[in-house]
Amino acid sequence: MAATGGRRCRRLEGETARAVLANVDTLLFDCDGVLWRGEAALSGAPAALGRLAAAGKRLCYVTNNSSRTRVAYTEKLRRLGFPPAEPRHVFGSAFCAARYLRQALPPGAAAYVLGGPALSAELEAAGIPHLGPGPAALPGPAPADWAQAPLEPAVRAVLVGFDEHFSYAKLCQALRYLLRGPDCLLVGTNRDNRLPLEGGSAIPGTGCLVKAVETAAEREAFIVGKPSRYIFDCVASEFDIDPARTIMVGDRLDTDILMGNTCGLTTLLTLTGVSTLEEVRGHQESDCPARQGLVPDYYVDSIADLLPALED
Amino acid sequence: MAATGGRRCRRLEGETARAVLANVDTLLFDCDGVLWRGEAALSGAPAALGRLAAAGKRLCYVTNNSSRTRVAYTEKLRRLGFPPAEPRHVFGSAFCAARYLRQALPPGAAAYVLGGPALSAELEAAGIPHLGPGPAALPGPAPADWAQAPLEPAVRAVLVGFDEHFSYAKLCQALRYLLRGPDCLLVGTNRDNRLPLEGGSAIPGTGCLVKAVETAAEREAFIVGKPSRYIFDCVASEFDIDPARTIMVGDRLDTDILMGNTCGLTTLLTLTGVSTLEEVRGHQESDCPARQGLVPDYYVDSIADLLPALED
Repeated sequence: MAATGGRRCRRLEGETARAVLANVDTLLFDCDGVLWRGEAALSGAPAALGRLAAAGKRLCYVTNNSSRTRVAYTEKLRRLGFPPAEPRHVFGSAFCAARYLRQALPPGAAAYVLGGPALSAELEAAGIPHLGPGPAALPGPAPADWAQAPLEPAVRAVLVGFDEHFSYAKLCQALRYLLRGPDCLLVGTNRDNRLPLEGGSAIPGTGCLVKAVETAAEREAFIVGKPSRYIFDCVASEFDIDPARTIMVGDRLDTDILMGNTCGLTTLLTLTGVSTLEEVRGHQESDCPARQGLVPDYYVDSIADLLPALED
Repeated sequence: MAATGGRRCRRLEGETARAVLANVDTLLFDCDGVLWRGEAALSGAPAALGRLAAAGKRLCYVTNNSSRTRVAYTEKLRRLGFPPAEPRHVFGSAFCAARYLRQALPPGAAAYVLGGPALSAELEAAGIPHLGPGPAALPGPAPADWAQAPLEPAVRAVLVGFDEHFSYAKLCQALRYLLRGPDCLLVGTNRDNRLPLEGGSAIPGTGCLVKAVETAAEREAFIVGKPSRYIFDCVASEFDIDPARTIMVGDRLDTDILMGNTCGLTTLLTLTGVSTLEEVRGHQESDCPARQGLVPDYYVDSIADLLPALED
């Protein structure tokens, strides 16, 4: 475990930063709010990752975003000047959801998908037959029509990811598949309730869609993304990971930091994204034991702050 | 209060039925699953209500369904052979939501509505400007476009009812109105998570849509429909109601019976709809005090069972 008793959330700088980084083999990075915002790399972030790579560290990318494939992430990293990454270093919730279904579904079983092209591509790559992506219309004017639309007999899972075409018609189909019984799995890519946009605005996140389906089905979804440890298990299954020599770097306490703490990693909060030091202090001062899991071991204003500790 | 200590859920028959009905002025009826299923009256229900009306009882109709206006309900009652009802005896969640907004909004303020023509008609009748009903498309291909669609400056409430055109685009607009701050109210017609259809199938209910909006907004909606006491307060504001001389008749423990018990009414479960005696027994045997509120005072297999007690 990274820490016993209460985590301290100390600023990672100077000799501490050198010592912590010297004892680390692998760094897991959340992406949006940590490495970039939208299409712009955060200042100093590509240089910091370049030095980590040059120092022989393994860099992996762990993101709840289900709207990009592994390949699309490696292209974005290259485009923004980060060190070269291979698709196998990228653990997006679309890839991990497809991996989960490949393990959990019997051969030939299909998934009904609320999601977009990236989720579809990762399912395709994993060999999971699926249907659902894209707009869907109600199959008639009356509720009785909606409850009689054709269902695909092979469907044994409903997978909920980010879906800009989410609609009542799709919610209805999802419920009908789930009403077939517990043999039909319910899987969500993540519970992020909002996606922050540049300029301070926000749009609804996948968590809203997962909640709608869970409410209809009266069932809890299996969640693939952070803070679920499943996404870390995916990393650990592809690489030889020693949790005691691994850092999780993220900007959200309730996903990145909680997952890292749960999995026994060292956790580092960057203040370039969603969560604030004030929120950390609130968790530290709380009597609620669960909130201690939201406190990181360390914080930096930006991962560019790691640069001095990485100089020769 | 209708009962002290644990409620007994006794079958309402014979002399008890005569005595209970003799001591009642007003009966509040849920509709679907109590009076009818779909377009068919339940056998004996029109006759039972006819006798109650002939005996001078006041009959009101209290329904979470937001897809019909007061007027549409009176027409359906007439069509199915129930005693004549006036619109003012019908308390649907569409009417009650409009009433709530008329009280809660400043003059001229508007509502953004997830809902259909009935909700729109009741808002119109209450003089609340509103927008939203009907299909909505995303205002462009990218998240940045979605976060920049025009907003109506007068909107001071988001109202969530049953909306077969519910979509990510609408969820996005709802969130953007709610992000204006706590001055923008969040109101839901009800939390029913499913609407049962004839033949045992079901479609997602308004509760799923409310949950999606609440999750995005990180706020709890004010709920107008059962089990909220607001819908009973609407009845009590239009009629001189003595709770001790009023029966709530319904088929759902978590809405009809809970609301009736909360408001100090006598509660009567009919077994022609959603809830079962087995569920009642589960609540009775539970250690959880909240579940005692789900136990009715009485039950009947069907409200036709009241007929003998209503004979001269």
